[in-house]
Amino acid sequence: MAAAQFVVTLSCPDRPGIVAAVSGHLAAQGNNILEAQQFDDTDTGRFFMRIVFEALAADATLAGLQAAFTPIAERFDMQWQLRDRSERRRVLLLVSKFDHCLADVLYRWRTGELSMDIAGIVANHPRETYRHLDLDAIPFHYLPADRNHKAAQEALLWQVIEQSQCDLVVLARYMQVLSDELTTKLAGRCINIHHSFLPGFKGARPYHQAHRRGVKLIGATTHFVTAELDEGPIIEQDIERVTHRDTAEDMIRIGRDIERRVLARTLRHYLDDRILLNGSKTVVFTS
Amino acid sequence: MAAAQFVVTLSCPDRPGIVAAVSGHLAAQGNNILEAQQFDDTDTGRFFMRIVFEALAADATLAGLQAAFTPIAERFDMQWQLRDRSERRRVLLLVSKFDHCLADVLYRWRTGELSMDIAGIVANHPRETYRHLDLDAIPFHYLPADRNHKAAQEALLWQVIEQSQCDLVVLARYMQVLSDELTTKLAGRCINIHHSFLPGFKGARPYHQAHRRGVKLIGATTHFVTAELDEGPIIEQDIERVTHRDTAEDMIRIGRDIERRVLARTLRHYLDDRILLNGSKTVVFTS
Amino acid sequence: MAAAQFVVTLSCPDRPGIVAAVSGHLAAQGNNILEAQQFDDTDTGRFFMRIVFEALAADATLAGLQAAFTPIAERFDMQWQLRDRSERRRVLLLVSKFDHCLADVLYRWRTGELSMDIAGIVANHPRETYRHLDLDAIPFHYLPADRNHKAAQEALLWQVIEQSQCDLVVLARYMQVLSDELTTKLAGRCINIHHSFLPGFKGARPYHQAHRRGVKLIGATTHFVTAELDEGPIIEQDIERVTHRDTAEDMIRIGRDIERRVLARTLRHYLDDRILLNGSKTVVFTS
Amino acid sequence: MAAAQFVVTLSCPDRPGIVAAVSGHLAAQGNNILEAQQFDDTDTGRFFMRIVFEALAADATLAGLQAAFTPIAERFDMQWQLRDRSERRRVLLLVSKFDHCLADVLYRWRTGELSMDIAGIVANHPRETYRHLDLDAIPFHYLPADRNHKAAQEALLWQVIEQSQCDLVVLARYMQVLSDELTTKLAGRCINIHHSFLPGFKGARPYHQAHRRGVKLIGATTHFVTAELDEGPIIEQDIERVTHRDTAEDMIRIGRDIERRVLARTLRHYLDDRILLNGSKTVVFTS
Repeated sequence: MAAAQFVVTLSCPDRPGIVAAVSGHLAAQGNNILEAQQFDDTDTGRFFMRIVFEALAADATLAGLQAAFTPIAERFDMQWQLRDRSERRRVLLLVSKFDHCLADVLYRWRTGELSMDIAGIVANHPRETYRHLDLDAIPFHYLPADRNHKAAQEALLWQVIEQSQCDLVVLARYMQVLSDELTTKLAGRCINIHHSFLPGFKGARPYHQAHRRGVKLIGATTHFVTAELDEGPIIEQDIERVTHRDTAEDMIRIGRDIERRVLARTLRHYLDDRILLNGSKTVVFTS
Repeated sequence: MAAAQFVVTLSCPDRPGIVAAVSGHLAAQGNNILEAQQFDDTDTGRFFMRIVFEALAADATLAGLQAAFTPIAERFDMQWQLRDRSERRRVLLLVSKFDHCLADVLYRWRTGELSMDIAGIVANHPRETYRHLDLDAIPFHYLPADRNHKAAQEALLWQVIEQSQCDLVVLARYMQVLSDELTTKLAGRCINIHHSFLPGFKGARPYHQAHRRGVKLIGATTHFVTAELDEGPIIEQDIERVTHRDTAEDMIRIGRDIERRVLARTLRHYLDDRILLNGSKTVVFTS
Repeated sequence: MAAAQFVVTLSCPDRPGIVAAVSGHLAAQGNNILEAQQFDDTDTGRFFMRIVFEALAADATLAGLQAAFTPIAERFDMQWQLRDRSERRRVLLLVSKFDHCLADVLYRWRTGELSMDIAGIVANHPRETYRHLDLDAIPFHYLPADRNHKAAQEALLWQVIEQSQCDLVVLARYMQVLSDELTTKLAGRCINIHHSFLPGFKGARPYHQAHRRGVKLIGATTHFVTAELDEGPIIEQDIERVTHRDTAEDMIRIGRDIERRVLARTLRHYLDDRILLNGSKTVVFTS
Repeated sequence: MAAAQFVVTLSCPDRPGIVAAVSGHLAAQGNNILEAQQFDDTDTGRFFMRIVFEALAADATLAGLQAAFTPIAERFDMQWQLRDRSERRRVLLLVSKFDHCLADVLYRWRTGELSMDIAGIVANHPRETYRHLDLDAIPFHYLPADRNHKAAQEALLWQVIEQSQCDLVVLARYMQVLSDELTTKLAGRCINIHHSFLPGFKGARPYHQAHRRGVKLIGATTHFVTAELDEGPIIEQDIERVTHRDTAEDMIRIGRDIERRVLARTLRHYLDDRILLNGSKTVVFTS
């Protein structure tokens, strides 16, 4: 039987000896380090690390490992997390009638490419809208957009979020701006896929903005959701080439492909504990 | 002996029969069409075309072809140009101390990749700054930047432009903002390479802006210079991936590669008469 | 009401006057040219053209346009086709248990991105294998792979092809090598998506071959199917970056994304009459 | 004053405790780890690591650090290297008349982008061939290619290599096949830039091969030189899109850009000790 694998991610003020302390501790506890990445942000003096290890001791438990790590974390004033890699994250998907991201995430989830549990789907449109997708037994919540009762709708949304016990909320082309209050409550665990190459074309109808400006590349961006619209820490971006022949509608079509692959990569990185917040930016430990 | 080749580029209000009229006329004059591209801008109702042809008649001259084409052009109310492809364009290069674009353009010019005459180099720094580049017999104009005498300096610059009889002025990382007056005089024949993926990060120090924002891709953009800073019609763009590890200085280094290839492509397209202005946008007839 | 649109594609020995003859003829018949692309293969002396036009005459019919074009086609010894753009092509999809291309094509077909009729699905696996996909009323043919009765199976396949009245057969990860006899019968109307960057890694298990060789980019290729395995005319290719960390299984996963976008682009080009055969190569008139 | 930086690269049979032993040792000696990357090749059971550290002890010397590391290295049966990052590598450049890679490397060396000493240039053509490049005081060795006296020429080349005391030999479009004997002597310290996307189009005139095959992407590859032509461990690759319009000559032109950026990246990685040999493959620790 393969040994259980764990992942620790941490950030703390940089100073000599962190790597040695962490790796020495893990080894002393009978663990074998499989992957390790680190980053010093010399602008801010903050240190970031991600370590994947296997616990060779037969009696290793998550709680035990966490307890043993705590003194190290306190010594270096770390923000940290130590997880069992076999524990699947719960992800809640929020969608509007544009379902290309939803369809793509479902497909990748079914093939095992995205190793997670889908905690539910929240949609502005009734289930019938997605009749060509196999939503299976995934809890489906129909929350029609209603400009006049936005607060009430958000209260319902918050209820779904809490009841779903989700780790992450994904605005998979949700097309609703969340209130400051809700974004604050979801800080660090809500990501959005924006259909432009930020910081260009913030706000509504970015492909129409891009078409009007005559750009030669269009893009998409995932970012953590913050109170300031489309200004949260950027996680991943990608682009495709367009020409003068491409109408705004062509860009919307081309953009669907960009959006879904940017979101898919973001989810993979998230599920693999590769994304760390660094103030208004992110550290993404790709391989 | 190969027949002489010509290229006609035109734009006019769209209406049926333009293609047939133009190609019929060219054929009737004993020419053979080698390449043809067209574009209808359905937003504005304007039609764009580029045709490369060889004149099979032994006595064909540029003046004769132009004279023969004039009635067609008038009939359709065309903005047009008919050029001899063997006639080399004259290009004036404006540079600051960042000489990567200059070095690259010189190399491509020497290999024959950029088929043009270099009408001169205008630099804010003395010739000695570029001592590792072989500037050969290219006229070199040292115009030190001087904030207090900007108008006088621009007068000198205009004199160089006029005397050089250049077709195109290239701001190859010139780092000076031209006055409204000068940009107006140079309308349609002055291009700039901007070191960001416009419309993101306009203005100064774009790589520092990009670093601060934490984007995952950086880019460069060529555009026609207009009075509004970094808002002119975009010609070409490209990007490269960066990570949280890349400092602003790394981005500057990576950006050099992007800038030089975006500028090189732009010049190739320009020299091949592939770039047409379309209001605040461009039509670029790549193959 | 918008005028009916037609597209003519042709190839013939190159000689002066083809463009003028074709565009003059179309104009004389009261048509308006919307798009035109041409290419002279100077290696072989063959000329290729694609013209999209709208028929302004109220009584224009496909048959009438074809009849009127025939003398021109004969004069220049053309291989040609003149189609009504509103007539949807019939496409037959052949799949194995790897259904990522199938799922992607179905999604794009439903959104209208691929404007075609799906004439049927032929699968080596029973319908249950694809239970998460909405196959709707698309005719489904289960043809289990059987090494011992390959000829009999191909006879059944041919029957399905004929009865489906399909214009195009797509091996969407079919994983069966067709016989010389069948490839000959399907010449020019059968395309395959191969999971490597051809000509590297022909044949079986290309991602394993790529992993063994230690390449830093992997790719996928669509090509017309010919008797010689993986040697048919290439239509489209794309790649993604991999690293030493990527196992053969990672490459298979990454490759799924490449394969589906290469196939999708190929189908769009095909449905838009942009792909012309040129001996062992293709001419692809992208915009 | 900034502390001196060192880099250790190593590979050894994988077993638990390597990371902890190495990082613990470095910390115990008063060093601070700045970067660390590791890789387990699960196919071969071999472990690879690269660590950048600064020596905080005032009296730290390279020799001292190496001596202190030796017991660790022996304990784990490591192949290893420990270098002072401020010590510049000596690189010998071999070129033919195609000088685009040479020109590019020289430019990047002058800007400081490639932090190395150029130990010399060996050319098949006389110095006059490169008159537009500023070769400065770099030792220049003219070794005309001579099929009839290949052995004698290689003896001269070997003499230059030895006298130049170079760490790395770069075939920067050298266009000569080295003998088995010489490749054996240069094992692991000679790299070639091949002008194709290997393993496609090995051997001579790859762009002509690519044109004949009708591929839609062309590429370039750097690899360690081994006795088997174009079969050595691949270090880096890149591609660009081509179309049916691109002649073999166009591909040669486009290829120049690919070749020079692939070679530049390879050199940066090499100079930063990021490339480790792994049998017939490479481990490249990019950030």
